[in-house]
Amino acid sequence: MFSAVDVIRAKRDGGQLDDEQIDWVIAAYTAGEVAEEQMAALAMAVLLRGMTPSETARWTKAMVESGKTLDFGSVGRPTADKHSTGGVGDKITLPLTPLVAACGAAVPQLSGRGLGHTGGTLDKLESIPGWRAELSDTEIARNLRGPGAVVCAATEDLAPADRKLYALRDVTATVESIPLIAASIMSKKLAEGTESLVLDVKCGSGAFMKDLDQARELARALVDIGAANGLRTSSLITDMSAPLGRAVGNALEVDEAVEVLSGGGPPDVVELTVRLAREMLAHAGIGDVDPADALADGRAHDKWREMIRAQGGDPAAELPRAQHVEVVSAPESGTLTGLDAYRVGIAAWRLGAGRARREDAVQHAAGVRCLVKPGERVTAGSPLLELHTDSPDTIPAARESLEGASEISGADRTSTPLILDRIAPRD
Amino acid sequence: MFSAVDVIRAKRDGGQLDDEQIDWVIAAYTAGEVAEEQMAALAMAVLLRGMTPSETARWTKAMVESGKTLDFGSVGRPTADKHSTGGVGDKITLPLTPLVAACGAAVPQLSGRGLGHTGGTLDKLESIPGWRAELSDTEIARNLRGPGAVVCAATEDLAPADRKLYALRDVTATVESIPLIAASIMSKKLAEGTESLVLDVKCGSGAFMKDLDQARELARALVDIGAANGLRTSSLITDMSAPLGRAVGNALEVDEAVEVLSGGGPPDVVELTVRLAREMLAHAGIGDVDPADALADGRAHDKWREMIRAQGGDPAAELPRAQHVEVVSAPESGTLTGLDAYRVGIAAWRLGAGRARREDAVQHAAGVRCLVKPGERVTAGSPLLELHTDSPDTIPAARESLEGASEISGADRTSTPLILDRIAPRD
Repeated sequence: MFSAVDVIRAKRDGGQLDDEQIDWVIAAYTAGEVAEEQMAALAMAVLLRGMTPSETARWTKAMVESGKTLDFGSVGRPTADKHSTGGVGDKITLPLTPLVAACGAAVPQLSGRGLGHTGGTLDKLESIPGWRAELSDTEIARNLRGPGAVVCAATEDLAPADRKLYALRDVTATVESIPLIAASIMSKKLAEGTESLVLDVKCGSGAFMKDLDQARELARALVDIGAANGLRTSSLITDMSAPLGRAVGNALEVDEAVEVLSGGGPPDVVELTVRLAREMLAHAGIGDVDPADALADGRAHDKWREMIRAQGGDPAAELPRAQHVEVVSAPESGTLTGLDAYRVGIAAWRLGAGRARREDAVQHAAGVRCLVKPGERVTAGSPLLELHTDSPDTIPAARESLEGASEISGADRTSTPLILDRIAPRD
Repeated sequence: MFSAVDVIRAKRDGGQLDDEQIDWVIAAYTAGEVAEEQMAALAMAVLLRGMTPSETARWTKAMVESGKTLDFGSVGRPTADKHSTGGVGDKITLPLTPLVAACGAAVPQLSGRGLGHTGGTLDKLESIPGWRAELSDTEIARNLRGPGAVVCAATEDLAPADRKLYALRDVTATVESIPLIAASIMSKKLAEGTESLVLDVKCGSGAFMKDLDQARELARALVDIGAANGLRTSSLITDMSAPLGRAVGNALEVDEAVEVLSGGGPPDVVELTVRLAREMLAHAGIGDVDPADALADGRAHDKWREMIRAQGGDPAAELPRAQHVEVVSAPESGTLTGLDAYRVGIAAWRLGAGRARREDAVQHAAGVRCLVKPGERVTAGSPLLELHTDSPDTIPAARESLEGASEISGADRTSTPLILDRIAPRD
C-alpha cells in the first residue's frame, strides 16, 4: 500500500525512491489519485534533492508506461531519430530527416511546436502550403514504409504523465531539474518507439543550458536513460551562443533547409546536419553510408520532396513572404565577433515568428535573417540583420531586443567550435 | 507585479523573500489566485531551504492579515494566553485558565480539537454535560469581562490562510518545517488578539518534537515571531517522554483537572500549572500575585465553576464513565523507570478517546489511567494501567500498542526534570 505523503517524504529527506514507489506515483498521478499539489511538492523535492541515474531511468519508464507506445518493428528498416533541446535558427531536423532516410534508415521524427524564443519544427513545416502535421498512427507507419521519413505531431496518448507533469512544472518553478528535463524528453522518444536516438544538446545564450557543465550533465542523463531502457543513444553538445545558420523564423528556415538540400546553405548548418546524420546512421547499423554523398548528389533533396508530398505539402509552392522587411545596420566597422542567439530569438519571436501562449498562432513569414555571421567583417552602416514581419508595429520592440546583440571588434574572432563535446553510453 | 513562479524560484534557489513577496503570496493564496500546487512547491522549498526569523515573522503577519482579528482591549484586564504544542495527558489548560483568571488576568483560550494520539482541549471539556465550545465574538468578549476565562473554538475567519495551508501541508509532506509550524501556531494566537502568550513546547516521545535541540529551535522561532509582532512571549520546554499526570482521555482528564483545582492531583500537573501561571501573570504585569495561593484557597476552583457555567456546562454533573474497564498488569517487579507517552497516547486513541479523521466523534469516557507513575515501585502482576472504553473490541489493539511501553528496572530511576528549558525574547 503506497501513500503519496510517504513517497514525497522519502525524497524530501534525501532518500532514493525504489522502483515500486516510482511506478506507483507516476501511475497514480496520471489517474488523478495523486493530486497536483502532491506532485508539485514531489517535483520540488526532486529538484532540490536530485535523483540517481537508476531513479531517473525508472521515472522515465513509468512515464512511458502511462500511455500507449508505438512500434515500428514492421517498417522493414532500422529506425533512427534525433532530438534537439532547442535553439535559435535550429532547422536541422528539416534537412536531416530526408538525408538519413535517403541513406536507408527510417526516421520517425515526432516533434513539437515552438514556445518562447525557440522555434518549433512543426511551425516551420506548416509554412509549406498544404503540409499537415497531424497524422494517424496508420499514416505514420505507411510513410515510414514509403518515404521512410516522417515529421509529425506527437499524439496526446504518448506519455500522458509527461504532458501533465510538464504543465505542472511550468507553473511551480520546477522546470530546472536535470533529471526531470531528461525524463521528459526521453519518455516521449521512448514512447514513440524508435530503436536509436541521437541527442543534440544545445549550449549557450540561445539554449536552455547556458554553460557547458550543465549541458554535459543533461547529455549524460539523457544517454543514461536511453541505455537503461534499451535504446541506442549518444549526445552531441553543440554551440548555441549564436543562431544556427542565417535564418531565424518559420518560412525563412524552410528556405535555408532547401538551400542545404540543394548543396548550398550556411556551412554550420551543413556541418551539423552531416555530423548528426553520421551518428544516426552508425546507431542504425548503416555507418558505412556517407551522408555527405547523399547531400551532394541530390538524393536527400529528392527524399525531401517525397516526404513533404506524403504529408499533403507542395514542395514546389512559393513560401509566404513578409509584407515588411527592415534592415538593422552595423553600428561600427570591424569583425563580427558575437551575435547573441537569445536576443535574436527574442526579436524573431516579437516579430511574430513565435508564440507567447500555447494557443497563439505564428506568422509563417516573420523572423530575422542574419546577413553577417560571426567571423565575417562588417562596415559601419552596412546591413547586419533583416527584420521580417507582417506587423510593422512589432519592429520597435524587435529592434529594442537586439540592442547589444552584436559584438564588433577590431581583432579577429577566436572561432568557437560548433561541436563542443560528445557523450557516449558508459561501458 | 508579482508572479508565483518568481516567488517559488527565489526560495527554491535559497534566497530570502522580501516583505512584499510574502504579503502578496499569502494574500493571493487565500484568494485562490496562487494555486494549491504552487503553494505546495513553495512549502517544500521553504521546508528544504528554511526561512530567516524576519521572513517567518512576516509570513505569520501576512497569515494574520488574511482574516479578521479579535481585539480584547475593552475587557478592562490584561489578557494572557497559553499554547501547548500538544502531548499525551496534557490537560493543563483546564486548571490553568481559571487559575490565571482568579489571579486577575483575562484568559482568552481559543483551542482546537484532537487529531491522532494527542487530545484536544475542546474534546475534553465537551465531556461536561451542557458545555458549549462554539461562542460568538460577543459571547467571548462578555465572558472575558465576566468570569475572565474563556475556552472555546477558534472561528473559521481567524487566519484563514493558515487553515488552508495547514490542510495542504498535511497531504504534501511539508508539515515538518519549523518556520511553518511556528507561523501556523502564532498566526492563530496573534489573530485571537491576546496581549501576552506563554508557549509550552513539549519534548519527548509523546510530542511532535522528539529531541531537545528541535524543541529549542521551535521555541526560539515562536518567541521571535511573538516579539517581532509586538506580543509579550516566552516559551517553556517541558518533558513529554511520559504522560502528564495519571489520566489520558477526555472525561478522565477533566476529573484530574478538578482534583488539581481542589488542592490535590498529580504533582507534575500541579507543578506545570503553577509554573505556567507564573509566566502568564508576569507577562500580564501582575507577577506579584502567587497562583499557588489561588489554587490552595479554592479561588481557582470557584473560577472554574463560573467559567463552565458561563458556557452552559454543569460543573456539578456526573461525568460519563466507560462501560468497560480492564487492567494491564506489571510484567515484573521493580521501579517503573519509563512509561512511553506515545504508546499510551496511541492506546487511548484506539480505545476511542481520539479521532483518526477530523469528522469523527470521540468517546468522552474512553482513555487510559496510569496507576503507577515513573519513579514509583511495582510488583509483578499488580495493576499498572487501566483501559477505559465503551467498545471492548478495541482493547486487544490498545494492549498491543502498549507492548514495551513500560520500562521496569531494579535500579532507582534517575528522575527527569519536568521543565527542560525556558526561552525568553532576545534582548
